[in-house]
Amino acid sequence: MQPYELSLAAAAQEIRERRLSPVELVDSVLDRIERVEPHVAAYVAVFAEQARRTAREAEREAARGSCRGPLHGIPVGLKDLIDVVGVSTTASSRTRAGHRAASDSTVAASLRAAGAILIGKTHTHEFAYGLTTPQTNNAWDRGRVAGGSSGGSAVAVACGAATFALGTDTGGSIRVPAALNGVVGLKPTYGLVPRHGVTSLSWSLDHVGPITRTVDDAALVLTAIAGHDPRDPASVAVPGVDYRPRPDPDLTGVRVGVPRTYYFEHVDAEVATAVHRAIAQLEALGARLVEIGIPMTRYIQATQWGLMVPEATAYHESTLRTVPELYQADVRILLEAGELMGAGDYLRAQRARTLMRDEWAGTLKEVDVIAAPAVPMTAVPSGQETVTWPDGTVESVSDAYVRLSSPANITGVPALSVPVGQDTAGMPIGMQLLGRPFAERTLLLVGHAYERTQSARPLAPLP
Amino acid sequence: MQPYELSLAAAAQEIRERRLSPVELVDSVLDRIERVEPHVAAYVAVFAEQARRTAREAEREAARGSCRGPLHGIPVGLKDLIDVVGVSTTASSRTRAGHRAASDSTVAASLRAAGAILIGKTHTHEFAYGLTTPQTNNAWDRGRVAGGSSGGSAVAVACGAATFALGTDTGGSIRVPAALNGVVGLKPTYGLVPRHGVTSLSWSLDHVGPITRTVDDAALVLTAIAGHDPRDPASVAVPGVDYRPRPDPDLTGVRVGVPRTYYFEHVDAEVATAVHRAIAQLEALGARLVEIGIPMTRYIQATQWGLMVPEATAYHESTLRTVPELYQADVRILLEAGELMGAGDYLRAQRARTLMRDEWAGTLKEVDVIAAPAVPMTAVPSGQETVTWPDGTVESVSDAYVRLSSPANITGVPALSVPVGQDTAGMPIGMQLLGRPFAERTLLLVGHAYERTQSARPLAPLP
Repeated sequence: MQPYELSLAAAAQEIRERRLSPVELVDSVLDRIERVEPHVAAYVAVFAEQARRTAREAEREAARGSCRGPLHGIPVGLKDLIDVVGVSTTASSRTRAGHRAASDSTVAASLRAAGAILIGKTHTHEFAYGLTTPQTNNAWDRGRVAGGSSGGSAVAVACGAATFALGTDTGGSIRVPAALNGVVGLKPTYGLVPRHGVTSLSWSLDHVGPITRTVDDAALVLTAIAGHDPRDPASVAVPGVDYRPRPDPDLTGVRVGVPRTYYFEHVDAEVATAVHRAIAQLEALGARLVEIGIPMTRYIQATQWGLMVPEATAYHESTLRTVPELYQADVRILLEAGELMGAGDYLRAQRARTLMRDEWAGTLKEVDVIAAPAVPMTAVPSGQETVTWPDGTVESVSDAYVRLSSPANITGVPALSVPVGQDTAGMPIGMQLLGRPFAERTLLLVGHAYERTQSARPLAPLP
Repeated sequence: MQPYELSLAAAAQEIRERRLSPVELVDSVLDRIERVEPHVAAYVAVFAEQARRTAREAEREAARGSCRGPLHGIPVGLKDLIDVVGVSTTASSRTRAGHRAASDSTVAASLRAAGAILIGKTHTHEFAYGLTTPQTNNAWDRGRVAGGSSGGSAVAVACGAATFALGTDTGGSIRVPAALNGVVGLKPTYGLVPRHGVTSLSWSLDHVGPITRTVDDAALVLTAIAGHDPRDPASVAVPGVDYRPRPDPDLTGVRVGVPRTYYFEHVDAEVATAVHRAIAQLEALGARLVEIGIPMTRYIQATQWGLMVPEATAYHESTLRTVPELYQADVRILLEAGELMGAGDYLRAQRARTLMRDEWAGTLKEVDVIAAPAVPMTAVPSGQETVTWPDGTVESVSDAYVRLSSPANITGVPALSVPVGQDTAGMPIGMQLLGRPFAERTLLLVGHAYERTQSARPLAPLP
């Protein structure tokens, strides 16, 4: 097994026990990047020299038995919305030409303090405003979409081009590409991970979180990046927690909600089957399945758009006036549409969110987690605009990808996407686990228990 | 001294010590209402029979040494935005004809549990959307405005027509009428007092709080109504606190911020002089005066209006469509204007609020309280539309009355208005004390210490 193939937890342990040097790991990942980048284009920028220099320092430190933290020597890719001092945060946009971040974002600083080594900045759908990341190709089939908006991060992790990555999630942008590329994605509870220094799409829906190869790895990263930072007005002061799940896969007493509405409607049959099989596996591990209804489903799409569109436009207000031609057409249209929205529509969305949050809190009293598909279908061929469901309904690909993810953005509840197999075309399928606010430990416990029953997932093969 | 003249604290003590019966107190206040109502019109409705019946029960309970709570037997007037089960919440509006509240608001239930007796519902500027309360006359001069929107509550307390009252405050609606009628008004920290069952003007700016004759009384009422109620989405879970200030008037070590900008600009000379004299009194009590700047003052008005107008319109959306002709002209114009506002303006106001809240938090690290005028001028003659300042600036009366109050609504910080004398026309002047979020105890301590240095204020004389 090559070092780039190691999970975060395994690599960190190898480094701690001095069986692996950070230099070997970083070199292995950089070699892998050279191999795969021509096929997937996950990265905006790779900082090979800088990463090697940091790895040599980390190697010296490890050699004298001193580790900076639990991520010592581990190569990370950061979605290029996340500020790192001295380098450009391009947001994969021409409007950011010449940008240079004056200081680290809170999460970049936290990862640095925990010992992680920045290997590069990964592609996002421009300013995170889309579900495909057109610059990047799916890790399993270069003719298919990466998913978005954290497409570069998910593809890099799936290919071995980063040991882990961070993404952001406003309507599903961590979970969608994680599901489409067969990796783990966690959107934490709103307010748990500070967003200071992270380019905003829609501040009342934005979240930062890990994309990893295992649930255990997601827990390790979350432990490093969760925490209070008053520079993010939404950041919540919660006690520091070690999120790593206990190894014991017993789920006795855990109530798993299985939605009888919404989450299995207009879902590809192979996806539904794989998720139901995974849910049966949770039951075999001792969980009690409880059929549940999903509240206020007909408000989900209007609420997501009603909040996101005007907030995104507000953020881009001045650039949209000065250099509108530098945006990609799809993003510019959405931003300009936001200028036409009335305050009343935004307020209706805010009020609907408050009601949805309350209703979801009620539903999440009946169960400990909800298990559902992460996305209704696997990665579609690049360029495909719509999907047609068996009942004849036609839906835009973006609407379909965001549909099952956005409830967790609107309500702020945590949501974890875990791979649960592949369809007959070999494309990965994701199961989504949703839980109570700040109950990430429960999600990670359930996800980890499931994962332990499965054989180790291989990296995406070279095309 | 007649029972209606007693402060809340004094009356409660008399009742506890069985020197005064709740029936005597309620009868005395009801008699007073009959005397003053023809002159001031503070009440929408007086519940004489119901109040007498409750007083007789309270009398029997007190006779056997059992008091429901610290407000046992005390007559209260509630601003008619506050639901009380079985009676109409008119909001002083024709649109509410036939309304009947199905249950108590949280604050009405809290007061009931503490032993208070509802004596009547007091007038508000229609739906709290104005600063004058045109139905009601000032307690000190029936030719002048009551102030608003909690005009009825302040006038009733000032006249002895209620031992205390509750008001609501979205841009100054507790503090403005309290200042104009020579009584104490407290706008608590945003989220401290639950608003469930209270008609909303603008949910991100609305507060409920006490109007009383002394600072001590305000503390007693706050202790009874503060607390968590998840049915108000903004309600904050804070530990129960006894807010009553210690009797000792020593202010040694307290840093009092004296604004060198904004709060003394375009302020009537007599008002400024009275407030400066009161501030000197705080210094004589041991406080240290610290000159401070007020942040982001040129954004205050736009932020207040940018938040309030669309939220108010959203609340009235359906009534505005079905029965627009039932609103008073001034309120209807404001509500209809709100329909034209873009989401961008609202979001700019939200973002400005976030910045202002941060800037104010910084300022409030340098001092413990800020002392300033509550309103720039005393009560103007009814019907006066504008005020002209010595530099020739013309300002609408409403804009002037809201100007010094709204920063505490925008930022959510607590603010207390305390009477500090009268102008040469005999009209009361109010000093405003502002503090850190949830530092009501400090405000009440300072206000109480000041108050103890003054001779007891008489009730407003009968006209």
